[in-house]
Amino acid sequence: MKTYLDASTKQIDEAVTQSWQAFDGYKKLNLKNRADFLRAIAASLQNSSAVIIKKAMQETNLEEARLVVEFKRTLFQLTSYAKACEEGAWLDIRINTAGEQLKEEQKKTAQQSTNNRPLSLSKVDLRKMLIPLGPVVVFGASNFPFAYSTAGGDTACALAAGCPVIIKAHPAHAGTSEMVYEAIKEAVNNCNLPTALFQHLHGASFEVGKRLVQHPLVKAVGFTGSFEGGKALFDWANARPVPIPVFAEMSSVNPVFLLPQKLKQDTAKIASMLSESITQSVGQFCTNPGIVVGIESDALFKLLNMLGEEIKKMKPAKMLHSGIAKSFYSKRAEALQQDSVSIVAEASLANENEGQPTIATTTGSAFLSNPVLHKEVFGPYSLVVQCKDEKELLLVALQMEGQLTTTLMATDDEVKNNAKLVDVLKEICGRFILNGVPTGVEVALAMHHGGPYPATTDSRFTAVGADGIKRFARPVCYQNWSSELLPDELKNENGLRLWRTVNGELTDKSLDS
Amino acid sequence: MKTYLDASTKQIDEAVTQSWQAFDGYKKLNLKNRADFLRAIAASLQNSSAVIIKKAMQETNLEEARLVVEFKRTLFQLTSYAKACEEGAWLDIRINTAGEQLKEEQKKTAQQSTNNRPLSLSKVDLRKMLIPLGPVVVFGASNFPFAYSTAGGDTACALAAGCPVIIKAHPAHAGTSEMVYEAIKEAVNNCNLPTALFQHLHGASFEVGKRLVQHPLVKAVGFTGSFEGGKALFDWANARPVPIPVFAEMSSVNPVFLLPQKLKQDTAKIASMLSESITQSVGQFCTNPGIVVGIESDALFKLLNMLGEEIKKMKPAKMLHSGIAKSFYSKRAEALQQDSVSIVAEASLANENEGQPTIATTTGSAFLSNPVLHKEVFGPYSLVVQCKDEKELLLVALQMEGQLTTTLMATDDEVKNNAKLVDVLKEICGRFILNGVPTGVEVALAMHHGGPYPATTDSRFTAVGADGIKRFARPVCYQNWSSELLPDELKNENGLRLWRTVNGELTDKSLDS
Repeated sequence: MKTYLDASTKQIDEAVTQSWQAFDGYKKLNLKNRADFLRAIAASLQNSSAVIIKKAMQETNLEEARLVVEFKRTLFQLTSYAKACEEGAWLDIRINTAGEQLKEEQKKTAQQSTNNRPLSLSKVDLRKMLIPLGPVVVFGASNFPFAYSTAGGDTACALAAGCPVIIKAHPAHAGTSEMVYEAIKEAVNNCNLPTALFQHLHGASFEVGKRLVQHPLVKAVGFTGSFEGGKALFDWANARPVPIPVFAEMSSVNPVFLLPQKLKQDTAKIASMLSESITQSVGQFCTNPGIVVGIESDALFKLLNMLGEEIKKMKPAKMLHSGIAKSFYSKRAEALQQDSVSIVAEASLANENEGQPTIATTTGSAFLSNPVLHKEVFGPYSLVVQCKDEKELLLVALQMEGQLTTTLMATDDEVKNNAKLVDVLKEICGRFILNGVPTGVEVALAMHHGGPYPATTDSRFTAVGADGIKRFARPVCYQNWSSELLPDELKNENGLRLWRTVNGELTDKSLDS
Repeated sequence: MKTYLDASTKQIDEAVTQSWQAFDGYKKLNLKNRADFLRAIAASLQNSSAVIIKKAMQETNLEEARLVVEFKRTLFQLTSYAKACEEGAWLDIRINTAGEQLKEEQKKTAQQSTNNRPLSLSKVDLRKMLIPLGPVVVFGASNFPFAYSTAGGDTACALAAGCPVIIKAHPAHAGTSEMVYEAIKEAVNNCNLPTALFQHLHGASFEVGKRLVQHPLVKAVGFTGSFEGGKALFDWANARPVPIPVFAEMSSVNPVFLLPQKLKQDTAKIASMLSESITQSVGQFCTNPGIVVGIESDALFKLLNMLGEEIKKMKPAKMLHSGIAKSFYSKRAEALQQDSVSIVAEASLANENEGQPTIATTTGSAFLSNPVLHKEVFGPYSLVVQCKDEKELLLVALQMEGQLTTTLMATDDEVKNNAKLVDVLKEICGRFILNGVPTGVEVALAMHHGGPYPATTDSRFTAVGADGIKRFARPVCYQNWSSELLPDELKNENGLRLWRTVNGELTDKSLDS
């Protein structure tokens, strides 16, 4: 396989400087043109889909069917964020005019002791909208060569927000990244934009990423990967003379909690759903359910057996690359050698670098006393924690770290009768699934793909769905500017028909009508 | 004056633990009851206004008229955020239903190579809203004993978001803080809430603040004060095993840029506006204009003279406390002793601890080469930077650190003909004022009181206006929950008549109508 040289210090600095220069023009591009650019990227990728997918198959060991789905998802992200970009709700526009009404109000309130002036009034004209932050560094993810890499969600969001992008290609699919980059360049040209807008760098060494994150002209960072990687970026970014936001999606075991009645009712179905979710894409999804928590019972015993049988039937497949496979077996071994942990079942292996589907089990008390068992084993591995009663199950929930998702398997009655548990499970996650599985992250506005630390470095923002655009923007308020001098988005006439909160009322009308 | 003992480690830990326990119930309080609680605090404060204002006059040296205005502002914050709280737009609700429409769509797209499924569709039911973070520590600000202290903006936002509050009272007005705390306790009782919901601690030593920020059950921090203070909190928060957001409003010189035509037209008016803004409240506003930038000309010379004359006429007044006065004179001295800096005019002093209104001046080139001149001198001091031409003025703008505000004095033609400068000035600030002054921060939804670092630690959030509520919340997405089991805000019937984005459309209707 072709090897790509790490970007030199000079190349990194040049790329960032060029990106900064391109920001000047790109941020002025109107929403419609930005959206067209995203759609042009999708079209350009589409034209090269066959060769790009083929390349990704060679580099990642992922199956064609899986890559085709991911490729489509990537195009959908680009086109749906394009739509959101031009619809402009993400701009969070608020306008408070300095109306005549105010003067009346002031006369009235002058005599009053409390100032009950309604929220909508202001002495001066104030108009607020989000503006782009500047060049964004996006780190390609090993497990999603398309959807969270070069033309992935972070890139689409940053471009929609008006930010140039600097890609640090993932070394495990650097060739795929090059091809995606070529497609993007074509879209850049087709839209008559400067090529500097999109920078592409290689870097197998962490030094490349470090220099990028520390560069003064870089304004934000998107990352999907390991806890160690994300934490390093977060720390570098915060230690800068001017800190910048890092949106790192890191570590999550996506616990599944089983309540007795539901488990008894649907044992087989739950076993089947879980085994599929645990082994999907060789367990290499960030939402892979790594921990299953239940209460000792016949039903749980039955589930363990069924889950074991299902797992044994799973055909193992190669992991993304040998490094990931090595890490999987080392973390799996570490987990399995802990006290009170035993294997329930494992699939048999055929080839090197395959991920071995594995179900292990332990007790609630072992889990509560051993932090090693809380750690993510990235791959097709799940640990079933058998609690002795509901009280212990609640303790396990209370001790859980921040997660991308938690899943509850429960009947309606059980949801209603376990208010405390339901609340605790909600508090630890960004997405709370009832009677489903955590894998399968819909690209939709209502999606939240994020969660409390260490799942991500910033629980307030999502990496999936058009709300992700807001990660790369900040508000600025114009005070006392006449309509004529304001950006189009804030002008009285509202020619773009944006939804704006004007004097407290949501409206897509112009200011005078 | 009564002295208050610093909270002991034990007291701090108890306060946080109690706050955490109170979170359990408080977060379940519906929006209407939360809003009523904020209004009850306003009412309770109103009842004690006379004695509280009297106490603040004793502790802060601020004049009665100024304190009365600030007190009213504080009540307005509470009542207007209460209104925003119950209106619920801040919850950012997004719903994607798993509709029949999808199945149709899937059939169609199965044959297509790109997945053009509209943004509104999802395979599963997804419903997202903001939920509160947990206990919030609010540090009282020295310069706003009411509006940014115990019952101030951060407190009102945190309570509106559903978070309990732990106050670290500012030692310079600890007695005022105690009285405000008493009024809040009365409101807590009147609303039948647990007193643990609102904790009040004293701490002249930084150790109290440090322990609070490092406590694992504290989930966010609000702070208004010095750069050194804010930076320390930010670093402690990021070094925690689980980092938390810190919203620190720190350092800003709020530069005012004068363009020639406007300056020539309105010299006297600008001199009068600026001198008033610089000396208001003895220059102790975070939006005080500390740097004025113009181009060498007769008009600028005239402005300097006029500004000098106005400043000399200003009656000095005592600063907040002797520590602030000492710091003002030391920073002022440091600035004045730099090369190429000279005093234009200063008012004469009568009493100890008065802040001496001062106008100094320097050249553009001196400013560009000396970082000391960029630093905030907290008090009634402003430095007029005389650039030799428009190019140098642009360089000064480009070298400016992040600011809460920038102000531009320009004619309409000048705005149109200086697109680059206008863009640069926008990039460095959170609020961009045209032909006005930065002091006077309206409490309105369209306000943005924030700005790039070092003005604040997080440019994406505001400390003034109801959008500030979002600082203390994060999104959670419910997947596959039936309407009956969801929180009221997300139920089909939308009994609260909240604005929600349902399948891509903003609506305040129920899901079935």
